[in-house]
Amino acid sequence: PVARSSFDERALKTTHPLSAYLLRLMAIKKSNLCLSADVSTTNQLLHLAEAIGPSIVVLKTHYDLISNWDYHPSTGTGARLNRLARRHGFLVFEDRKFGDIGSTVQAQYVEGSAKIIEWSHITNVNMVPGKAVVDTMAEAAARWRQRKHYEVKTDISAEAPTHDGRKASIVSITTVSQHFEPVNSPRTHDEFAGDLFPDIEEPPLERGLLILAQMSSKGNFMTRAYTDACVESAREHRDYVMGFVSQETLNAQPDDQFISMTPGCQLPQDTEDEDAEIQGDGKGQQYNTPRKLVGIMGNDIVIVGRGIINAANPRTEAERYRRHAWEAYLERTSS
Amino acid sequence: PVARSSFDERALKTTHPLSAYLLRLMAIKKSNLCLSADVSTTNQLLHLAEAIGPSIVVLKTHYDLISNWDYHPSTGTGARLNRLARRHGFLVFEDRKFGDIGSTVQAQYVEGSAKIIEWSHITNVNMVPGKAVVDTMAEAAARWRQRKHYEVKTDISAEAPTHDGRKASIVSITTVSQHFEPVNSPRTHDEFAGDLFPDIEEPPLERGLLILAQMSSKGNFMTRAYTDACVESAREHRDYVMGFVSQETLNAQPDDQFISMTPGCQLPQDTEDEDAEIQGDGKGQQYNTPRKLVGIMGNDIVIVGRGIINAANPRTEAERYRRHAWEAYLERTSS
Ligand SMILES: O=c1cc(CO)n([C@@H]2O[C@H](COP(=O)(O)O)[C@@H](O)[C@H]2O)c(=O)[nH]1
Ligand SMILES: O=c1cc(CO)n([C@@H]2O[C@H](COP(=O)(O)O)[C@@H](O)[C@H]2O)c(=O)[nH]1
Repeated sequence: PVARSSFDERALKTTHPLSAYLLRLMAIKKSNLCLSADVSTTNQLLHLAEAIGPSIVVLKTHYDLISNWDYHPSTGTGARLNRLARRHGFLVFEDRKFGDIGSTVQAQYVEGSAKIIEWSHITNVNMVPGKAVVDTMAEAAARWRQRKHYEVKTDISAEAPTHDGRKASIVSITTVSQHFEPVNSPRTHDEFAGDLFPDIEEPPLERGLLILAQMSSKGNFMTRAYTDACVESAREHRDYVMGFVSQETLNAQPDDQFISMTPGCQLPQDTEDEDAEIQGDGKGQQYNTPRKLVGIMGNDIVIVGRGIINAANPRTEAERYRRHAWEAYLERTSS
Repeated sequence: PVARSSFDERALKTTHPLSAYLLRLMAIKKSNLCLSADVSTTNQLLHLAEAIGPSIVVLKTHYDLISNWDYHPSTGTGARLNRLARRHGFLVFEDRKFGDIGSTVQAQYVEGSAKIIEWSHITNVNMVPGKAVVDTMAEAAARWRQRKHYEVKTDISAEAPTHDGRKASIVSITTVSQHFEPVNSPRTHDEFAGDLFPDIEEPPLERGLLILAQMSSKGNFMTRAYTDACVESAREHRDYVMGFVSQETLNAQPDDQFISMTPGCQLPQDTEDEDAEIQGDGKGQQYNTPRKLVGIMGNDIVIVGRGIINAANPRTEAERYRRHAWEAYLERTSS
């Protein structure tokens, strides 16, 4: 059912560390907006992240649309995006839509050129190949977490006690692994400077998955039975699956604290009236307003791409979307 | 129904130029084997293509599993793979499993870093987002074909008549476009040297799509209704869709000349007995033998990955798979 409780309250109920972090972030930033950063160069991507960072809680990428994506683990596009994410307080979500047999997906997630697991807090999966694909991704994420936590621990114990006898309490993760991007290293004052939200904590060393349970496109083949199976699989992996890419909330049991993120969102142009008609993109995409998606359908986060990117002023347009989506959330939870 | 006619005969019936080419290739090379080249470096990939090229008609890639994939249009991994493809006579099939809304998939197919359409004769799509995804890919491929043919034509007319008055008949495509990989340029003697099959023609300047209609993995969610919709969409795009990745032939109407390629194929190890049991991979993959897949289920091409790659001698193992799959085809068409 549509959640009436606040994001803050839900942050206390979920057992997923990254979901809890995200829900707190939403409350602090008063934002339930995800930018779909569908641009074609690294510079465009980073500029957009810098400009719109204050308005969003998630930035969604299609890394393979970036013609000059730089794969370097510590100076490449993913690492730079992560630094902006920490500065502004948002999570990175690579919209990879994994959709192969388990063994292939594991390799695509962790290895290959893109090493998505290293720079993307969240990714998503198309469960068509069967539930094993979620099982194998969960397995890969658990191994990743173990490795990261081990690296951090090792580094602490390697650190000599300081002259006054206290152990150094700041863990410098940047030094422990060549392949590690400094996602969670302490923010320096300089990195911190532009930050509008000093209350934002470091994100936990965790990874999360969204299951693609319903699509926005016309005539898609996601049936009720298919969507139900997605929910079933999510319940089997509550420590890894954060929620869904879906068109409505899919929380049904008391323990369901899943977050639903929803693409296919636009506001009518040149008017604040959400009842004005919105055209699709002529290639199957269909749009709904934040009021419908958040207020009525009970989704938590709206995903907006061209509605913001193609605006004359993406920064102010992002703020307009943030405001509309947030008001829809306030209305939903005020009754 | 299971086809009783030969690949040669079917080459005459299909209206898809790339399917006709592939079917002729199969007859010449006596092979209905596709190698799934799931390795992790460019060198491994190219060595495998070189070693196993004579046994196969299609080489399937997951470009994003190659940690050092080189994106350069004329000297990169895709271009080099294409040169080996021309030398040995096989088509390249990037197993990308596109699965997004139309506008995103078009960009992923044609643009971004990988520019898959430039180096991969064949790719595939997961039709879950709806039929529009096939429509938009067909549109992109038609534009690509138009552009290529225009480039070739332009180059022909630019070419001066030779001294004896005849127009130069060999089109040197390498010169016409900076972004073009010399897929179809005439083979030099040197490139030709290792070629065991001098009858092999140049592949046509065409692109083809396979629709993922059935999967090999346990508990996958492809229902009969879903598979039927895939066939319907294929029939709407007979000039672009070559066939299916499926577990059985899906040809049902007289006009259906679709090719079915089938993963989840292994031979029992250390025995020629195809009735011996074969284990899955423990991550959802299920295996069947060529005799079952080609002989009984009526598939045309078997896709084999780990069965060949992990063998002590991949080259001789590939030959063993080629022989078994070809015999299954001969048996099927001899009755
Ligand atoms: O059902 C879906 C699922 C996704 C994400 O998983 N998307 C993606 O959202 C974004 C929507 O962009 P738009 O707001 O410009 O239409 C695109 O990146 C598209 O690939 C959709 O548009 N629909
Ligand atoms: O249903 C499918 C579809 C595909 C291809 O579209 N695949 C792919 O075939 C290959 C099978 O490899 P294997 O022979 O090593 O199991 C892998 O690349 C896998 O991703 C499958 O394994 N099953």
